[in-house]
Amino acid sequence: MTAAPLPPAGSAEELLARLALCRTEGVGPVGFRRLLAREGSASAAIRALARGPSVGVRVQAPPDMSAAERELRAIERLGGVLLTLGDAAYPALLAQLQDAPPVLSVLGDQALLAAPQIAIVGARAASAAGRRIAEDLAEDLAEAGLAVTSGLARGIDAAAHLGALRVGRTLAVVPGGLDQPYPRENAALQARIAERGAVVAEAPLGAAPLDRHFPRRNRVVAGLTLGVVVIEAALRSGTLITAREAADLGRDVFAVPGHPLDPRSAGGNALIKDGAPLVERAADILDALPGLAGTAPAALPQPPPRPSATGGGADQLLELIGQTPATVDDLVERCHLPFSEIQALLADLELEGRVALLPGQRVVRTTSE
Amino acid sequence: MTAAPLPPAGSAEELLARLALCRTEGVGPVGFRRLLAREGSASAAIRALARGPSVGVRVQAPPDMSAAERELRAIERLGGVLLTLGDAAYPALLAQLQDAPPVLSVLGDQALLAAPQIAIVGARAASAAGRRIAEDLAEDLAEAGLAVTSGLARGIDAAAHLGALRVGRTLAVVPGGLDQPYPRENAALQARIAERGAVVAEAPLGAAPLDRHFPRRNRVVAGLTLGVVVIEAALRSGTLITAREAADLGRDVFAVPGHPLDPRSAGGNALIKDGAPLVERAADILDALPGLAGTAPAALPQPPPRPSATGGGADQLLELIGQTPATVDDLVERCHLPFSEIQALLADLELEGRVALLPGQRVVRTTSE
Repeated sequence: MTAAPLPPAGSAEELLARLALCRTEGVGPVGFRRLLAREGSASAAIRALARGPSVGVRVQAPPDMSAAERELRAIERLGGVLLTLGDAAYPALLAQLQDAPPVLSVLGDQALLAAPQIAIVGARAASAAGRRIAEDLAEDLAEAGLAVTSGLARGIDAAAHLGALRVGRTLAVVPGGLDQPYPRENAALQARIAERGAVVAEAPLGAAPLDRHFPRRNRVVAGLTLGVVVIEAALRSGTLITAREAADLGRDVFAVPGHPLDPRSAGGNALIKDGAPLVERAADILDALPGLAGTAPAALPQPPPRPSATGGGADQLLELIGQTPATVDDLVERCHLPFSEIQALLADLELEGRVALLPGQRVVRTTSE
Repeated sequence: MTAAPLPPAGSAEELLARLALCRTEGVGPVGFRRLLAREGSASAAIRALARGPSVGVRVQAPPDMSAAERELRAIERLGGVLLTLGDAAYPALLAQLQDAPPVLSVLGDQALLAAPQIAIVGARAASAAGRRIAEDLAEDLAEAGLAVTSGLARGIDAAAHLGALRVGRTLAVVPGGLDQPYPRENAALQARIAERGAVVAEAPLGAAPLDRHFPRRNRVVAGLTLGVVVIEAALRSGTLITAREAADLGRDVFAVPGHPLDPRSAGGNALIKDGAPLVERAADILDALPGLAGTAPAALPQPPPRPSATGGGADQLLELIGQTPATVDDLVERCHLPFSEIQALLADLELEGRVALLPGQRVVRTTSE
């Protein structure tokens, strides 16, 4: 069942009221939608709540307009934007969910939110082969004009972002606030996505990711996309829950198969048994996505030109990175550059395929240049 | 299209005539069937051919009755039997083929030919994981009452035979004559199958396996079975040809999936894309085999009790096999037993899981007993 559309915020005051309302304890996404449908606007809903419960929503403390204003200013200082449900820029597929996030904060290329998106999700403890296929699939799907959406987790998620980032068409949905990259090791990756893709958060700025944020993150990933591709997932895994939610939302579910003796194959193989198309390469998805028919890549947002990590910093860094792995800490010690710049440069160099990042914050040269 | 049934040989003379006729240059399986349908018996067909071509079959030299008699006696000396198309003991599914082998020579448990059979086929250069799943699947299918049929090739075939042999329900279809194990490294395995399963050959006794025998061997495997399970097969492989032939014959085709980056997965994954059920375990096959409904394992031939490889020879051999691989040649040198006995003992010990056979004719102890 598709939820009825809401009106756009329309004014700066109503935008703030919506932000304040949805950040209020006791107002969930479904309550928010009901309040707006009943009262016509967040401002009116706030006035109504001051008089008592409305449409079953009861609040302990009134919405905090000044906290909302502080959050909005902070998002803007980061270079981000706030989208509310009902805005033209709010992603249309996600808006259909009864429990669509009332607001999204976004860093980076907003236009990607309107692009047809495909999710690639899978195991955090992914195999090297699994990460490799995630990266290749993501790059090929992005080349074909789809934005690749994932959750910035370790393993498959990160590999999918990396692959699509080569084309500049990836969205990371993060569990906490925009300024709370999770896991920390993917902070540099998030920074790169903010530059050449988009980072999306439902949680308030400053919110550290909590257990309850992860199912919501997964639901937003499913809600944003035309379909979900599962690569390596155990039978009882968050990945499979995301896939099931996507199917419930009417999205296509695709699965990459694996050898039955590898427990990471069980989820994908089970989905294929249940009828999910078996995916070996991007064409298997592109051919099957009915929602994509008639979408010409030319009609899609064009990615920004790809920057090159050549320059003093990158060269200095590359000289320190050899064929045997060095830790990032080593590099920080030996390289007279700030930590954040080193992380950004390493992400650039990885994107260009000149270094590989290894577990344990280690890095190694991939070319003999 | 199912071929019309032929009458049984009925007499020793007609049996010999059929053997002589089908061993005659110019008489293929289809010609053999046409000749018998036209002339009523092989004896009558031989008389007809002496007068000139019949139903399009022309022979250079007349059928050689004394050669046929020599072959039959030699098969009997090996402890084998000769079945001709039309005999009650000739496997019924295979008999439906227009080009069914006119005769089969069989070593071992003839009753297995009447059991419901499933083929497990795949790559010669199989992965360890692929061989493992072939072995486990075969054992479980045999436990469930199916005979497991394969081609005695290296890799998947051999692993499937090994697994099913633990239960005593496996058929090896060999490309050459019964007395020409191929490949040589599987000679001991063939000897064990002849003892506790059945070995089936279309080619004459003494015939070394030639290129043309392999497609026939594959066709007999497909023809004998209710379905074919593919484990690890490249896109252009004999395995996939066998699977396609099985599908053309109306048999079920099953496939074990694999990771897309492994070229050995391409065949199985392609079959799944084309609609073959994805197989992770025996239940996936048993549930899907319509031909199996109502087949109670109790109604199937019971396997002979399993012999144990304990005794002087086995103990002597085990003492020579350590945790680091030894070559079979080493063992022959250090162990005062004939080569053939060592091979048989090694096959027994492998069956019992006490040693593992490695590539390059090497063997290693698997237990710390």
